[in-house]
Amino acid sequence: PTSKLPHIGTTIFTKMSQLAHEHQAINLSQGFPNYSPDPVLLEEVFKALQNGKNQYAPLQGIFSLRKTLCQKLNTLYGSNYQPETNITLTAGATQAIFTAISAFIKAEDEVIVFKPAYDCYEPAIELYGGKPVLIQMQAPSYKIDWEEVAAKISSKTKMIIINSPHNPSGKILQKKDLEQLQQLVENTNIFILSDEVYEHLVYDDQQHYSVARFPKLAERSFITYSFGKTFHVTGWKLGYCVAPKAMMKEFNKVHQYNVFCVNHPMQVAINNYLQEEKHYMQLGDFYQQKRDYFLSLIKESRLEFTPSEGTYFQAASYKNISQEKDTDFALRLIQEKGLATIPISVFNKNKQDDHMLRFCFAKKDETLKAAAKIINTL
Amino acid sequence: PTSKLPHIGTTIFTKMSQLAHEHQAINLSQGFPNYSPDPVLLEEVFKALQNGKNQYAPLQGIFSLRKTLCQKLNTLYGSNYQPETNITLTAGATQAIFTAISAFIKAEDEVIVFKPAYDCYEPAIELYGGKPVLIQMQAPSYKIDWEEVAAKISSKTKMIIINSPHNPSGKILQKKDLEQLQQLVENTNIFILSDEVYEHLVYDDQQHYSVARFPKLAERSFITYSFGKTFHVTGWKLGYCVAPKAMMKEFNKVHQYNVFCVNHPMQVAINNYLQEEKHYMQLGDFYQQKRDYFLSLIKESRLEFTPSEGTYFQAASYKNISQEKDTDFALRLIQEKGLATIPISVFNKNKQDDHMLRFCFAKKDETLKAAAKIINTL
Ligand SMILES: CSCCC(=O)C(=O)O
Ligand SMILES: CSCCC(=O)C(=O)O
Repeated sequence: PTSKLPHIGTTIFTKMSQLAHEHQAINLSQGFPNYSPDPVLLEEVFKALQNGKNQYAPLQGIFSLRKTLCQKLNTLYGSNYQPETNITLTAGATQAIFTAISAFIKAEDEVIVFKPAYDCYEPAIELYGGKPVLIQMQAPSYKIDWEEVAAKISSKTKMIIINSPHNPSGKILQKKDLEQLQQLVENTNIFILSDEVYEHLVYDDQQHYSVARFPKLAERSFITYSFGKTFHVTGWKLGYCVAPKAMMKEFNKVHQYNVFCVNHPMQVAINNYLQEEKHYMQLGDFYQQKRDYFLSLIKESRLEFTPSEGTYFQAASYKNISQEKDTDFALRLIQEKGLATIPISVFNKNKQDDHMLRFCFAKKDETLKAAAKIINTL
Repeated sequence: PTSKLPHIGTTIFTKMSQLAHEHQAINLSQGFPNYSPDPVLLEEVFKALQNGKNQYAPLQGIFSLRKTLCQKLNTLYGSNYQPETNITLTAGATQAIFTAISAFIKAEDEVIVFKPAYDCYEPAIELYGGKPVLIQMQAPSYKIDWEEVAAKISSKTKMIIINSPHNPSGKILQKKDLEQLQQLVENTNIFILSDEVYEHLVYDDQQHYSVARFPKLAERSFITYSFGKTFHVTGWKLGYCVAPKAMMKEFNKVHQYNVFCVNHPMQVAINNYLQEEKHYMQLGDFYQQKRDYFLSLIKESRLEFTPSEGTYFQAASYKNISQEKDTDFALRLIQEKGLATIPISVFNKNKQDDHMLRFCFAKKDETLKAAAKIINTL
């Protein structure tokens, strides 16, 4: 049959995790924790299952959870999201992103995407006949050149997708980035899609500048979040999306025919679990320790890096070690050394190769130690 | 903002369940059981949670479950589905349907849809600029007129969507229906999307004629299934899709960027639970009893019906009671009598009104009894 996405293969994450499995390599490639979630959270799921929360949830999600989440956002970011109209629970942030794009992108629409970019944005845009307009951020700082953005905005620009804390670079947007974005989109009809799944994973006393903090951005923004990243349960596939009422209305039209609603007992469990603030407010510290531990282990290695500012990823250059293409180098690292990573070129425009790898440090200390041992011999 | 689906509102199911809630009505509208799943299945979920199955599953689903499901299908329907290439777990059958349509439907493609139809097919087609070609099945027999289908097939026909056991009519397709369909599509490039979520709910010793039984249909078919309908857990949002390898390849390209993968611990639980055949083979009997009980309770009522052949829905005409529009009649039934049902016109072409209501009998006996008491006073 004719393909609508002829150039799309299997995601790099699937490929790398498969290779890691085959070669019994230490897996710092696909982003997921290899430790368990809080047993308290698991108990909450079991309680919900036993309390008969096993039938369809409302299509936006259960009200109590929507209320808890809006309050959390409004407290953290000074926003004004209402549970009735501004939020929908989704089957992970990926489904939120796909649905937001589905709701608005039509043939010929342009969507600005900053590269390197997580790999789900472009195929969704292309499926609707939209055109991704790619802007490459340059390693190793991965800063956005806002003048370039201004130059790329056209009458066809329908949406700009941003992502902070940024996967795969580990960089975060600063206040002035958001202000520049705001200037560019003011008095336009451009939507923002802000992928903020790593909101709580920000280091060294820096802040997460959510789009929700900027009313003139928030008024045109879908913001996507994830419980998987927050509670060490990437396999539960639960996230959510917030946006102004009129945008959520269009989002929900697609959502109800894409998945209708999402896992009910787990919504109940997460709502109960979220009642204790410490369950998410201590996350930053937890991951700061992970990052610091990992970096302390590899500080004598020949990798070059500046400490990750956010996410559970550390990007690093291996150009002191090899001049190989990053895909070749990553493959050899799995096959010969038993360490799986992600070559960042797969996320770049035209697969630009900066000899950078991405390491996931959401791993047990013993895993990080074993990985560092390999890294230090390179 | 401009809507891509301007004529789409909230699903009838959400509306009716909300009204039922407001009026504290007995809810035979939205299709979901009001009894609990097997505690054994709940225990399996808890075990999976505790056994650390909390991170991403593979994008097609866990291998063991894919294998179990292919074996089940191959045993029941004589098909030859392979876990490696022919099956993907989805966030409910709805996501499977949306994804199958997403994978192939482009602007100007025609998709034949039989009305009355479950409400998720058409919006998905329209989102991609496709054109639903509607064929009305006439109440009360709801038979497909295959000559009409032949006449509606054009060079633009990309897909035909069928659904048996059929929601909302409760009718099932017979062997000769499938044979006629096969004749029509042989030597064409037309895909079939066969929504078989009620496969196990077939009554009076009739058989479910899965498309999987017909190799010349199966070779061009997506078939969608649901665990929610099977195990009384509509709120878990788990289903799956089978198709030939080349079709699944395109399906997975969309799936991986729509949801990436689906709930991991629940996949593990369902796989363990499926190891006992009786857990699904006794379902038909269970629901036959429900149907028989409900019909015995309302046999003296002024409703007209032939017994449902499949699904957990009973369609019935109220034309001996009232000549009101079915939407008005259903509304009055909620407000004045405290009984929520679904007016079938909402699923018909041009909202054709045959004075038919749909009753969901996946309810506790006491609920059916209370509902029948109201029905018998009409
Ligand atoms: C959905 S698999 C990818 C997980 C992830 O977020 C990453 O590795 O970047
Ligand atoms: C997804 S809510 C609708 C449930 C259902 O299948 C029905 O009532 O027809």
